Amino acid sequence: MRAATIHHGELTVEEHADPTPGAGEILVRVRAAGLNGADMLQRRGRYPAPPGAPADIPGLELAGEVVARGAGATRFADGDRVMAITGGGGQAELAVIHERAAMPVPDVLGWPEAGGTAEVFTTAHDALFTQAGLRPGECLLVHGGAGGVGTAAVQVARAAGARVTATVRNDRLRGAVEELGATAIAPEGFEEQGPFDVILELVGAPNLPGNLQTLGSGGRIVVIGVGAGPKAELNLLALMGKRGRIHGSTLRARPLEQKAEAMRGVERHVLPLIESGAVRVPVAETFTLDRVGDAYARFEEGGKLGKIVLLLD
Amino acid sequence: MRAATIHHGELTVEEHADPTPGAGEILVRVRAAGLNGADMLQRRGRYPAPPGAPADIPGLELAGEVVARGAGATRFADGDRVMAITGGGGQAELAVIHERAAMPVPDVLGWPEAGGTAEVFTTAHDALFTQAGLRPGECLLVHGGAGGVGTAAVQVARAAGARVTATVRNDRLRGAVEELGATAIAPEGFEEQGPFDVILELVGAPNLPGNLQTLGSGGRIVVIGVGAGPKAELNLLALMGKRGRIHGSTLRARPLEQKAEAMRGVERHVLPLIESGAVRVPVAETFTLDRVGDAYARFEEGGKLGKIVLLLD
Repeated sequence: MRAATIHHGELTVEEHADPTPGAGEILVRVRAAGLNGADMLQRRGRYPAPPGAPADIPGLELAGEVVARGAGATRFADGDRVMAITGGGGQAELAVIHERAAMPVPDVLGWPEAGGTAEVFTTAHDALFTQAGLRPGECLLVHGGAGGVGTAAVQVARAAGARVTATVRNDRLRGAVEELGATAIAPEGFEEQGPFDVILELVGAPNLPGNLQTLGSGGRIVVIGVGAGPKAELNLLALMGKRGRIHGSTLRARPLEQKAEAMRGVERHVLPLIESGAVRVPVAETFTLDRVGDAYARFEEGGKLGKIVLLLD
Repeated sequence: MRAATIHHGELTVEEHADPTPGAGEILVRVRAAGLNGADMLQRRGRYPAPPGAPADIPGLELAGEVVARGAGATRFADGDRVMAITGGGGQAELAVIHERAAMPVPDVLGWPEAGGTAEVFTTAHDALFTQAGLRPGECLLVHGGAGGVGTAAVQVARAAGARVTATVRNDRLRGAVEELGATAIAPEGFEEQGPFDVILELVGAPNLPGNLQTLGSGGRIVVIGVGAGPKAELNLLALMGKRGRIHGSTLRARPLEQKAEAMRGVERHVLPLIESGAVRVPVAETFTLDRVGDAYARFEEGGKLGKIVLLLD
């Protein structure tokens, strides 16, 4: 099979041996695979794949058809359309996934959308509800509302009855983010808004002092992206005064049981919203595997609405 | 009535008008009132009393007898022994308390112990269980294990089936903290212990980098004391990698309903342990109201096991 391949920071397309599914696993012919910030970090050598994932094939999410099943894998049949998260290896023509890390693809989703759904909606749902405990009527601030996780978070929070504000750097995208259900604002001066019950941090440490300033009493900050930098000064007395908390989270390094649990939450609470049309999966641009370098460049450029997705034959 | 009084950083004993209980409140003849770190901060002008509390009388906890009741106050009868937390005003001969911020005093507790129970056990119980969600079998690190909240936390965590390590700066106190159920260690090099599921931070920001280093996957840090300083650099990528969270908390500024809820937790889960003798309230030293200055000096000196308590006639 052919796969996007990272060697010493070089991104190429190379031939790899076809993987074979083990017990409880499915082999998926990948049709679409979304890009994520973690892929960019991995290319720069700052985010190695966790044990068990292919070390040199990036890709945390994919969608495709089941073409073979390992011993005891019974959740799906051959030919079923699935979307999944994985510790790595998604940006390839074939991928092996544990069946409990996969979800059925709703009929309303085409391949590009399906390929960009699993990681961002699982990340957003887990961060907002499982970790931050977002409740109806609460005020949410999403930093980076136009990106993949951002557009997912805005929509699922809005569908859950939260009032959503989102920072969007590119002013040409604010209208589209407003259509998803948020009040879209420029990043500058966000700390004058609020107070917010929950803040989803997808940008990085430079926002932390402002986040603490605009956090409401009993508020929660969940940090899942630090592209703008990881280190910030934290005033613990301010955190105490707000009776606030700061969560850090990633999906990638979690054990299977935790990923599976998070995905069951998405199946129960998000897939019905996608099926009804209440929530959609914005795809900014697609690229064929041959153009994977262009896809990464487009991702790094930013200023897009939703996902960058690789398409595979 | 006479009361400890803070004016512009000066601590004296002065005459004040007797307070009168309003609806739902009780008037308590104070017999003992514990000192807390917040009193020290208030004397230095860094922690003003919240609205509704006496601005110039310190004291967050007290024990004494009910001597009068306001309209609708039915939880206690005149003469009942109660212990309570308050936003301020505890270090006085009389104090008005909402009846739902008071608890009955177990028969096994004398006045000095009762006067040093409410704040520290409510703080420790709320931090460990309500916020950090400490579970049986988990590993807890308490920074500042010999102090008031520290000795309370060590004991209630141990009684709940946690495995407890405590840093104790004064090496002469480590044996006593071990008797309370912890493995007592020097603060230096604590980050080489662990991993810990929960870290209770009673010392301050300088511990934060080490806390993050020794935090286990999915671990929780609860910060409720920053005497050693409030500001630290936080590496969000490290927090993400641990999938950790940092809580800041104080009891003092909370609304009555939240304080009352926390105290009901103490009544249900801690008072039975005190009654059975499984948990005790170490009192390092007592001082009469006339010697309140000496009491504060002793508190600031540190190196004590448990509480410094003012006794009132």
